[in-house]
Amino acid sequence: MFDSIAIVGAGAIGTYYGARLALAGNDVRFLMRGELAHVRAHGVRLVDQAGTQVLAPAAAFGTAEEIGPVDLAFVTLKATANRELPRLLPPLLHAGTLVVTLQNGLGNEEAIAAIAGAGRTLGGLCFIAATRTAPGEITCFHPGTIHLGECAGPATDRTRALAALLTAAGVRTHAEDSLAEARWRKLVWNVPFNGLAVVAGGITTDRILASPPLAARVRVLMDEVAAAARALGHTVPEAFICAQIERTPAIGAYQPSSLVDFLAGREIELEAIWGEPLRRGQAAGVAMPELARLYTELKQTTLK
Amino acid sequence: MFDSIAIVGAGAIGTYYGARLALAGNDVRFLMRGELAHVRAHGVRLVDQAGTQVLAPAAAFGTAEEIGPVDLAFVTLKATANRELPRLLPPLLHAGTLVVTLQNGLGNEEAIAAIAGAGRTLGGLCFIAATRTAPGEITCFHPGTIHLGECAGPATDRTRALAALLTAAGVRTHAEDSLAEARWRKLVWNVPFNGLAVVAGGITTDRILASPPLAARVRVLMDEVAAAARALGHTVPEAFICAQIERTPAIGAYQPSSLVDFLAGREIELEAIWGEPLRRGQAAGVAMPELARLYTELKQTTLK
Repeated sequence: MFDSIAIVGAGAIGTYYGARLALAGNDVRFLMRGELAHVRAHGVRLVDQAGTQVLAPAAAFGTAEEIGPVDLAFVTLKATANRELPRLLPPLLHAGTLVVTLQNGLGNEEAIAAIAGAGRTLGGLCFIAATRTAPGEITCFHPGTIHLGECAGPATDRTRALAALLTAAGVRTHAEDSLAEARWRKLVWNVPFNGLAVVAGGITTDRILASPPLAARVRVLMDEVAAAARALGHTVPEAFICAQIERTPAIGAYQPSSLVDFLAGREIELEAIWGEPLRRGQAAGVAMPELARLYTELKQTTLK
Repeated sequence: MFDSIAIVGAGAIGTYYGARLALAGNDVRFLMRGELAHVRAHGVRLVDQAGTQVLAPAAAFGTAEEIGPVDLAFVTLKATANRELPRLLPPLLHAGTLVVTLQNGLGNEEAIAAIAGAGRTLGGLCFIAATRTAPGEITCFHPGTIHLGECAGPATDRTRALAALLTAAGVRTHAEDSLAEARWRKLVWNVPFNGLAVVAGGITTDRILASPPLAARVRVLMDEVAAAARALGHTVPEAFICAQIERTPAIGAYQPSSLVDFLAGREIELEAIWGEPLRRGQAAGVAMPELARLYTELKQTTLK
C-alpha cells in the first residue's frame, strides 16, 4: 500500500521516523537541506534505547523533483516553513498519494489540504523527544507515541494501515477519532509551557512551576485553551487539565521545543501554537485575554 | 582536591559520569573489562541532550594495580559484584582517598567501609537513564540527578566539594543530609516496580499499573518499605508514597533496571534491593509478608 515514502523536511523528527521506516525495509526518500552532503556520504545514525543503528546508504535528495511521486509523504517541516509547501509538495503527488503532517499546532492540515486536497490529508501529533546529536545522528531520548488521525472525521482503514506501517517499524502509534480534538488537547500543555519558557527569559518547565506568578499564568492559559476547544465542540475534561499540571514536575528541567528553537536562534512556531488558536477561540466567542497577552509578549521577545 | 579519579566498574553509568568528568579536564582512569580493547582503541563516545562528544584517548585499564592510588574512586559495579571489592579497591587507596559508591540498594557503603573505612566512604543515588548503545558508546536518555551523602551523618564540606566537582562537569547533584533515608525512599519505588516487572514475566511499569492485582501489590509493598524505613528512624511522608505512584504513568512503557538485567540474562541485584531491606525491616520488628513473598518469587524466577 505504501511502496514509496517521502520525508519532507528531514530535521530530527522526520529523520528519526524516516530512518526507522527505512531500517524496517521501506523505500524512504529524505528531502533535506543542511545535512544533505553528510547524509549522502555517511548515511543516518540512529540512537535510541534499543541501541545504535546506521542507515547507509540513505536516499537523501535536495529537491522534490528528484524524489518524484510517492505513495506516502510525511511533512515534518517547522510550521514556519509552510510557505514552501506549494513548491515542495506537488512533485511528490500522484492520484493516490497520502500526505501526513507531523507538525505542531493548528493550520498545518489546512495548508496541506489546500495543495493535496482534504481527502488525501492526514495528521499526527508526535509525543517524542528526539534531537540531532552530531552530523547525521539523531538520538531519540523518549520514544513517545504518534497520535494519528484523518484531517476530518474518525479513524478509517487507511488511518489504521498507516498506524500498522509505523508500528511494524518500531514506532508506537495510536489512531485518533478526532485529530482536531487531540491537537487542542496538546495545546493545553504547549501554549503555556512553550510560551512562558520563552517569554520568561529562557527557563525550563520546573522553573516555570516553581514561580507562583508563572504557575498561575499556566493555569489561566490552560483554562482559556480548554474553553476555546469546548466552544469548538471538543471534549476537554477538567481531570485532563489537572493531569497536565501534575505530571509536569516529573519531567524535571525540561526545555519545550519552542525554547530549544529560541535558544538556537531559530524562529518559533508563533502562529501555529499561539496565533491560530487565539484567532479560532476568539472567532468562537471565547475571551482569551491571557493568551492574547502571551502572543504579544512572544512577538516582542522573538521579533527583535 | 581530586587530582586523580578512578571509575571502578565502567558500565554505562560509570562510563557516563567518568567521561563527563574527563571531558571537563579531570584525570579519570577507567577500570573496565568487556570493552577495554575497544575503548583503548577508539575512546568513549558520549551521547546526551547536549550532543555527542568523543573522549579519546580514554585512560582505560584492566587492573586496579595499573591505575594505582587515586584521590577519589567511584564504585559503579553491580552490587552483585561486590565480592570483587577486596581485590579491586586496596590498590586504589592512599591515606586520603575518598570512595563513593553509586550502586543501588542497601549494603554497598558497608561493603566499601569494611575495606576503606567508614570515614572515607560516601554514597550517591543515581536517578539517571543511561545505556550502552554501541561499543564504547553510552547514551544518556535522562540526565536526572545524583543525590550525594556521607556514609553516616549530614552533608559536610567534602560532600559539597564532591558535588561541585560533578556540577562543574555538567552533572546535576544534590547533597543529602541522610544518605540512608534517601536510599530507603528510592527503595519505595524500586522494590515494587523492579521486582514485579521481573516476576510478572518481564513487563514494563505501565503494564504493572494497568493490572489491578499488580497495582495493589505495588501499594502494599510501598507501605511495607515505608514502615521499615520509619521503624529505622527515617521520615517517609504519605504524600511521598502517593507521588511515587502518581508520577509513574508519565514515564510510559519503562523497563526498570532489574528488568533490563533480567532480559539480558544478567544477575539481578537480589540482595541489595530486596534481601537486605527485608532483613533490616524484620530486624526492626516490621512484618513484611509481601516483600518476603516477592523476594521468594524473585529467587525462584532468577535462579533457574
